[in-house]
Amino acid sequence: MAAHALDATRVHYAWDNALPPRLEIDPGDVVVFDTRDAADGHYSRASTHADVLARGPFRGHPLTGPVRIRGAAPGDTLVVEILEVRPRADFGWTAIRPGRGLLPQAEFPEPFLTVWDLADGTHARMDRRVAVPLAPFPGVLGTALDEPGAHSTMPPRKNGGNMDIKQLTAGTTLFLPVWVDGALFSVGDGHGAQGDGEVCVTAVEMDARVTLRLGLRRAAAVPEPRFRTAGPLGPAADAGGWFVTTAHGPDLFASARQAIRYLIDHLVTERKFSREEAYVLCSVAADLRISEIVDAPNWIVSAFLPESIFVA
Amino acid sequence: MAAHALDATRVHYAWDNALPPRLEIDPGDVVVFDTRDAADGHYSRASTHADVLARGPFRGHPLTGPVRIRGAAPGDTLVVEILEVRPRADFGWTAIRPGRGLLPQAEFPEPFLTVWDLADGTHARMDRRVAVPLAPFPGVLGTALDEPGAHSTMPPRKNGGNMDIKQLTAGTTLFLPVWVDGALFSVGDGHGAQGDGEVCVTAVEMDARVTLRLGLRRAAAVPEPRFRTAGPLGPAADAGGWFVTTAHGPDLFASARQAIRYLIDHLVTERKFSREEAYVLCSVAADLRISEIVDAPNWIVSAFLPESIFVA
Repeated sequence: MAAHALDATRVHYAWDNALPPRLEIDPGDVVVFDTRDAADGHYSRASTHADVLARGPFRGHPLTGPVRIRGAAPGDTLVVEILEVRPRADFGWTAIRPGRGLLPQAEFPEPFLTVWDLADGTHARMDRRVAVPLAPFPGVLGTALDEPGAHSTMPPRKNGGNMDIKQLTAGTTLFLPVWVDGALFSVGDGHGAQGDGEVCVTAVEMDARVTLRLGLRRAAAVPEPRFRTAGPLGPAADAGGWFVTTAHGPDLFASARQAIRYLIDHLVTERKFSREEAYVLCSVAADLRISEIVDAPNWIVSAFLPESIFVA
Repeated sequence: MAAHALDATRVHYAWDNALPPRLEIDPGDVVVFDTRDAADGHYSRASTHADVLARGPFRGHPLTGPVRIRGAAPGDTLVVEILEVRPRADFGWTAIRPGRGLLPQAEFPEPFLTVWDLADGTHARMDRRVAVPLAPFPGVLGTALDEPGAHSTMPPRKNGGNMDIKQLTAGTTLFLPVWVDGALFSVGDGHGAQGDGEVCVTAVEMDARVTLRLGLRRAAAVPEPRFRTAGPLGPAADAGGWFVTTAHGPDLFASARQAIRYLIDHLVTERKFSREEAYVLCSVAADLRISEIVDAPNWIVSAFLPESIFVA
């Protein structure tokens, strides 16, 4: 078993199985990936709301890779053991971009930026009121697709990709389908903390160092990504009570929106955050769960906010 | 502050604001409710699969109440402190009824019944392979509606009702809208354990004793139910690792179905349960989360199975 490293000096911005591998490894090798943040270095600690629009259109997540795994073939499963994920910067950012995110542009027409202080290594701090425990993970982990050409990194796909699954932290093992010879794995989009759903479309975004062991199960196809955690889910944020809003109705998407609206209202009314700060807090810390999905015509989506993030 | 008790000898099967209250209390009083299981005593420890169809059509959850809270008026919030919930029987049941539940009848055409042993007071035991930690809660808690007539207890509504929210365990405080004078609160449908989503349409169903303090916040309307937990969510089932399936696509409902299908396949293939047992396990122990809801055109729904329920 060998160890390798890939720095972040060269990245790619689309899923394209014609990209030459930056590295070729044996199954079971460990690779340390340095990754760039989703905005490709656009933001600094000094950035302001105006910098959100100055960024221009999204051109794809900068991804570190691809890595070719010797012997991997379509129908195999790539076994990604997540050994370590940590920030490579002392700050992270969360942006509201009008027209993106769960809530419509009419409700959040202005750009907004939160810069998080990550300097203590344990929490993302908004200001003295809020400390979200760091639970870092890569938002994007994926293999190459079996269709030719360049495919946007934005939507999650059958290759994994931009899954934004907050439980893909150190200790978790992810099983990814292999669609092309060599698998051609890439990773990026480090998140310091995030709620299930990432509702404003960004988490605590950051440069990251991601250490992975890439193994192979031959002829053991998984139809879509799946994973196994090493232990309990809760320790980072599940330290105290939760405040939870619910919304019922026949459409899960509409109910998710409504539950988040209620949570934003709560944060504004009860805890005196601005609407934009509240939306950001929902994105980085609140979890969307499907509480009820069988008693027609109404289902329930609930938004779970851990109250332990409030420190002042 | 007074304490009251309502036994389960008289129940009602619909939301109807013309029902006379069984009890009238002051805000802040405590009421011990004995509740009947969702099948109104149809099942016993000796019941079999055939008894599922013998039950006939569902006629409504048997509910204990209504309780009139003096002074409650539309626009107030009923504050329901859940003080204790415990089984009143040494068994619980979970049924697959063809045509009900998240998965279509074509996939589960036969009735199926699991009888759980609750005798040890800490776990629901299917057989020697499975012990699901008890985390009892009432599936139905609701106030009367402001529309006349009898309304089915099946769908969750603006009065709460059949919410099946698994976090409504002892220690949680639920905030319910008041729609009529006196609020007219009822409760029922005890669940010993359940996953977020209750996918096969039943949990570990049981007779229960539910102790609640019913308080009032005047002129503090909540648009839909919300709640606050007393502490961490996880302790009952979050004792070890989780196995998680994911499904991506533009429709959250379809993805929820698909994630559950994958989990059933996993339980059948890897752990040798029957398909029906696997569906039951998903219903009583697996949680549906919205992992991703902002990267169009694909969202991700994940099904989280706590592996600590497997004891042999």
